[in-house]
Amino acid sequence: MGIVVQKYGGSSVADVEKIMRVANRIVNTKKEGNQVVAIVSAMGKTTDNLISLANEINSRPAKREMDRLLSTGEQISMSLLAMAIDSLGENAVSLTGPQAGIRTDSKYSKAKIVNIVSNRLKNELENDNIIIVAGFQGETEEHDIATLGRGGSDTSAVSIAAALNADLCEIFTDVDGVYSCDPRIVPKAKKLSSVSYDAMLELALLGAKVLHPRAVEVAKSHGVEIHVRSSFSHDIGTIVKKEVSEMEHDGLITGIAHDKNVAKVVIFGVPDTPGTAAKIFKALADENISIQMIVQSAQIKNINDIAFTCSTEDAKEAADILRKIGEKIGAERVIINENIAKVSVIGAGMMTHSNIASRMFNTLGENNINIDLISTSEITISVTVDLDQCEKAVETLAKEFDIVE
Amino acid sequence: MGIVVQKYGGSSVADVEKIMRVANRIVNTKKEGNQVVAIVSAMGKTTDNLISLANEINSRPAKREMDRLLSTGEQISMSLLAMAIDSLGENAVSLTGPQAGIRTDSKYSKAKIVNIVSNRLKNELENDNIIIVAGFQGETEEHDIATLGRGGSDTSAVSIAAALNADLCEIFTDVDGVYSCDPRIVPKAKKLSSVSYDAMLELALLGAKVLHPRAVEVAKSHGVEIHVRSSFSHDIGTIVKKEVSEMEHDGLITGIAHDKNVAKVVIFGVPDTPGTAAKIFKALADENISIQMIVQSAQIKNINDIAFTCSTEDAKEAADILRKIGEKIGAERVIINENIAKVSVIGAGMMTHSNIASRMFNTLGENNINIDLISTSEITISVTVDLDQCEKAVETLAKEFDIVE
Repeated sequence: MGIVVQKYGGSSVADVEKIMRVANRIVNTKKEGNQVVAIVSAMGKTTDNLISLANEINSRPAKREMDRLLSTGEQISMSLLAMAIDSLGENAVSLTGPQAGIRTDSKYSKAKIVNIVSNRLKNELENDNIIIVAGFQGETEEHDIATLGRGGSDTSAVSIAAALNADLCEIFTDVDGVYSCDPRIVPKAKKLSSVSYDAMLELALLGAKVLHPRAVEVAKSHGVEIHVRSSFSHDIGTIVKKEVSEMEHDGLITGIAHDKNVAKVVIFGVPDTPGTAAKIFKALADENISIQMIVQSAQIKNINDIAFTCSTEDAKEAADILRKIGEKIGAERVIINENIAKVSVIGAGMMTHSNIASRMFNTLGENNINIDLISTSEITISVTVDLDQCEKAVETLAKEFDIVE
Repeated sequence: MGIVVQKYGGSSVADVEKIMRVANRIVNTKKEGNQVVAIVSAMGKTTDNLISLANEINSRPAKREMDRLLSTGEQISMSLLAMAIDSLGENAVSLTGPQAGIRTDSKYSKAKIVNIVSNRLKNELENDNIIIVAGFQGETEEHDIATLGRGGSDTSAVSIAAALNADLCEIFTDVDGVYSCDPRIVPKAKKLSSVSYDAMLELALLGAKVLHPRAVEVAKSHGVEIHVRSSFSHDIGTIVKKEVSEMEHDGLITGIAHDKNVAKVVIFGVPDTPGTAAKIFKALADENISIQMIVQSAQIKNINDIAFTCSTEDAKEAADILRKIGEKIGAERVIINENIAKVSVIGAGMMTHSNIASRMFNTLGENNINIDLISTSEITISVTVDLDQCEKAVETLAKEFDIVE
């Protein structure tokens, strides 16, 4: 009895049969006495097909137009889902991101939600309508459509849940919860019954694809409890919430994440003057390029090499930006290495147990896995390894830290 | 040198190659020193495919959702066309109907444009952008998307031309102009170099598919001169304008139109009380159902049969409306006949030459073509005939009235 926000990904609405299944699930939630807002992604391969079409026409399409184009994918699935619900006898109304009041900045292709003007949503709920909202999109101040980047529909859902002060936010996906590590690599990986925002954020940031990091950030800052679960079963999945009692975790380590969609960018020969690094990372941030690991090393006195990782998609743009800055500040050159993967161990208890890092490096070394970059946060240790050693690294670490069933 | 509004139909943007060709044409128009606004339809079969998908899910989808769904077709082609223009080195910005300021009433699936708020259009032109507008759509007062019905992109184009006080409005289509009758039936049909708004309106209303009647109405009321021409050649087409000198027409008759997409609806046994017919046609108008020929006949004293024609798509809805009213007013029954066609002769000089009607009926009779309903306006005479006699009727009338080359 309350407001339930549900998010269905592209694989959950890939064809007519699946759309009907999702419609049934939504109608059942409504019949249990809830007000329902469902956020929906584009059907299956729609987005990929639109991208191919655009690339046939223009190899570097303007981002504004690309966002405009891609946003139609979610608008098709939202209308079809509303029709499906209507055919089951419930009233449904579909809303685009702009209609749902989702306001974003103007960074096309990876815009951030800045605000949700929720009166239309509230009115439609008061009129007893089930609301279907197109995920992955919002409206800029200039009344243009902007998309939220990969995994953006998760962020749409959590942001709407926060704006409506929803009682429940369910993220339906094609796996049945959050695992301690990738079950495709480690078949005995444990499903977590619950996980804290901080650990989930690290897992998401570090490559666990089940929930988008920005969605977790929004959930954390607004205290939205998320239930990650399968759209193909009624099993309980994983609850993401503020605090998870120690009892729920058997070991020090919550999970092991890996990310193959990562590239290393290095700028060599950066003069060591105050503010140079800040200038570089501000320029990248201005383009909404997410930087992950950063390592600075001095080869010669007063000359630094700066290396960082970012997503493979962003690598070329990041390198272009660095080259422009590099010319101005007299740096040597910029290289990209896409042949790497990032592997991370995550655990809230890590900081009080200082031997985690040494155990990690030792295990990898004993298995002949070479470590390149290293970075640490309060609850994670991440390393980059060669791409073809990623699986082996996850397997050996899962064994070492005993996070399997 | 001025503002040029161009409209490209679905067959002109059916694939990547055709989109590039349209982009070139637009860029050339710009390079000739013009400001260009192009209105674009959905690519080829997109709309039909979306309709099939919707019907798989819901046999009677809500019109609001259907409009929402179909409007994505034009939004895809507008983005792709903007990308294509960008690849040719000109700045282009695509705008949805709502973004272009096209405001409509709330009659989903056949909304009427009530106003165009043109500041965004004007700003983009001032910024030296080519504007691509999604045709066939606008925004209701409730900020929902509504589509303008069949041929709606023509109306979008003419309305925008009127709002911007454009110097030229070009409608690009897959034929090279307006013909005196259908060249597929009468191979020697004449291409008209110019035609008056009134004659064009009748031609369009009576089934010539080349220009939508509502577009002609808007053009007439705002004095927008339209150039109907082929998107596959640079030949001059047909100019639609206020007055056409007598010299331009060789005969009394401008053209012969026919329409197979027409159905007859009859309500039998309507009590002959004041206001009954008004009630019936108001109810149909409230649903934006366009009524064409109306014939009322009294079989028995104080009891009338009322017959009218409308488009085949609207026939079932019209009959449903009539049945509801029929129950209240005590009418007998309602029938639909879709097995008819409408054939019309059109000519500005008709009213001063009273023998046109008798020549028409006589010619049809001599050729054993049976006439059902008859209606006349100032410049037209229309009859309905059996569907399978439509071609023969057009051929014999073209010969009788000498409108071939």
